[in-house]
Amino acid sequence: MEQLQELIAFVEKRARAHRFPNTPENLYDPLRYFMTLGGKRMRPALTIMAGNLFEIPKEESIHAALAIEFFHNFSLIHDDIMDLAPVRRGKTTVHEKWNQNIAILSGDVLFVEAYEQLAHYTNECLPILLKRFNETAREVCEGQQLDMDFENRKTVSAEEYIEMIRLKTSVLLGCALEFGAILGRQSEEMRKQLYAFGVSLGIAFQIQDDILDLYADPEKFGKQVGGDILSNKKTLMLITALETSDPRIAELLSMPANEEKINLAQFLFRELGVVETVKSEMERYYQQAQTALQAIRNTGMNTEPLSQLSDFLIQRDF
Amino acid sequence: MEQLQELIAFVEKRARAHRFPNTPENLYDPLRYFMTLGGKRMRPALTIMAGNLFEIPKEESIHAALAIEFFHNFSLIHDDIMDLAPVRRGKTTVHEKWNQNIAILSGDVLFVEAYEQLAHYTNECLPILLKRFNETAREVCEGQQLDMDFENRKTVSAEEYIEMIRLKTSVLLGCALEFGAILGRQSEEMRKQLYAFGVSLGIAFQIQDDILDLYADPEKFGKQVGGDILSNKKTLMLITALETSDPRIAELLSMPANEEKINLAQFLFRELGVVETVKSEMERYYQQAQTALQAIRNTGMNTEPLSQLSDFLIQRDF
Repeated sequence: MEQLQELIAFVEKRARAHRFPNTPENLYDPLRYFMTLGGKRMRPALTIMAGNLFEIPKEESIHAALAIEFFHNFSLIHDDIMDLAPVRRGKTTVHEKWNQNIAILSGDVLFVEAYEQLAHYTNECLPILLKRFNETAREVCEGQQLDMDFENRKTVSAEEYIEMIRLKTSVLLGCALEFGAILGRQSEEMRKQLYAFGVSLGIAFQIQDDILDLYADPEKFGKQVGGDILSNKKTLMLITALETSDPRIAELLSMPANEEKINLAQFLFRELGVVETVKSEMERYYQQAQTALQAIRNTGMNTEPLSQLSDFLIQRDF
Repeated sequence: MEQLQELIAFVEKRARAHRFPNTPENLYDPLRYFMTLGGKRMRPALTIMAGNLFEIPKEESIHAALAIEFFHNFSLIHDDIMDLAPVRRGKTTVHEKWNQNIAILSGDVLFVEAYEQLAHYTNECLPILLKRFNETAREVCEGQQLDMDFENRKTVSAEEYIEMIRLKTSVLLGCALEFGAILGRQSEEMRKQLYAFGVSLGIAFQIQDDILDLYADPEKFGKQVGGDILSNKKTLMLITALETSDPRIAELLSMPANEEKINLAQFLFRELGVVETVKSEMERYYQQAQTALQAIRNTGMNTEPLSQLSDFLIQRDF
C-alpha cells in the first residue's frame, strides 16, 4: 500500500499548508486547530488516486481533493455539536474548546472554503463538479438527520440503517472517487462505476466498523471496544440481534453500561448468528464494490491501486 | 416604486414555489416553514433589477436571485441560534420550534440549496458567480463573528462597527446587484460600481436602522423602539455617544431596561449631537452610493430603478 500512503502524505502536507485568514481569530483559529488534528485523509487521497487513473496531475486534482476534505471536516465540526461529543481524534472538539456559536460559524466558513477549492476549476469541469458536490453535500446532511431521527425511534430496519450510512458516510467516498473521473473528462458510465465502487466500499467499511466496535483488538482499534452496545446504539449488529426476537436481547439492552454488558453482547451476538449475518452483509457490499471494479478493469484501466485500497480498508478474515 | 414591488412579488412567488424534498421531514419541514415566514425579498429583487439593466430575462436571473435569498435565510437560521432569538418576523425561530440540532442541520442544507441555484448556470458565468458568492459568504460569516466578538469587548470604534456591518449585511446587497452584471456579461468596472452602490446603500440603511431603533414611529417600525439601548447594544449611536465622554452616558448604561432609559437616551443623544453625527455618517454612505450610481449613469445606462430603490430604502428627512 505504499502508493496510498504516499497520496495520503501528499494530501496531509497540502491540507496543513492551507492558509486560513488571520482574523477574526475566533473564526479561523478553530479551523487551524481542527485541520491539524489529524484524521485519515482517506477521502482526498481517493480523489487524487482516481485522478491518477486518468493521468490527472496531483497538482490539478488537489483542489477537488481538498474540497472533499474541507467538507468532511465541516460536517464533523457540526456533527460534534449535535452529538455533544467532547473529544474527536483524541483532542477536544471545537465547541468544547471554544464554544458552540464559534463551532457553528467556523463550520459554516469551512463549508465555504470547500466551495472555494472547487472554484479553482474554471473550465468545463466546474458545472459537473459543483452539481455532484451539491448533491453529495445534501445527502450527507440527510444522512445525519436520519441518524438523529433513529435515536428517537423504537425500531429501525436493516434497510433503513444501511440507507442512513450510505447517505451519511458512503456517498462522500463515492463522490471523492468520481471527482477524479470528472477531472479526467471520463464518460458518465466510468463516473458511475467509480462512484458505485466508492459507495459500496464505504458501506462495507461502515458495517465492518460496527462489527469491530464489539470484537476488535482493543490495542488496534483506537477507541473503546463495546462503546456502541454500552449506549444501546442502533447499529446493524443490534438491529440484526433485535430481528432474532430472542428475549435475551431485551435483557441485554436493560443492563447498565458495564464490562459485563459488553461480554454478554459478544457472547450473544455470536451465539445468535448475528455476527455471521452482519459479516455476510458486509461481504455483499464488498462484492458489489468488486463488481464495479471489474467493470472499470474491463475498459482496460489499471485498477490495481483501487484493488489494493479495498483490501486495505476491508479485513475479510476476522 | 411599482417596479420594485413587482420584482419583489415575482421573487416571493418563485421562492414560495420552490420545492424542498419531502424527507427527512425534520430536515426539510423547517425550511418549508422558514421560507414562507415572509421577509422582504429585497436582496433577490436587486439581482433581478440589476439583470434587467442588461436585458437579462427574469427567468434567467431568478436562480442567482434565489441563491442570494437562500443564503440569506441560511444565515438567519444560524444567527438566530447564536443570538438565542425566540422570534423572527413575528414567528417562532427554527431552533425554538424544532430544536437546535435541527436548526444547525437544516441551515446547512439550505446553504447547499443556495449553491444548487448557482449550479443552474452551466455557462461561462458560473466560475465568476461562484467566486463572488464564496467571497461574499465568507465575509458574511466574518461579520457575524465580529458582531459576536464585539459583545464581549468593552469598546468598539465607529470604524470597526462600520466594517462589521459592511461584512455582516452590506456585502450581500452588493453581491446581489453584481450578480445581475455578471449575468449581463458586463465589464469588471461595471460590476464594481454596482457592487459599490449596493454596499454603500447597505451601510447607509443599517446606520439608518440604528437611528430608527430609537426615534422611529412605533407604528411604522415593526419592532420595539429602543430595543438596542435597552440591551446596551453597541450600535453606531451608542459608540458615538461614548466617544463624547459625557459622564451621563455611563449613567445611562447602568440604568435598568425600562421606558425611562429609552427616554433619557432619546434626550441625551439629541443633546450631545450624537444623532447629527450618525445622520451625517449615514448621509456619507448614501452619497457614496450616489457616486457609484452616477458612474453607472455615465455609461449611458438607465439608472432610474436603482435611484428609486435608494430613495425607497433611505429616508433622509427624519
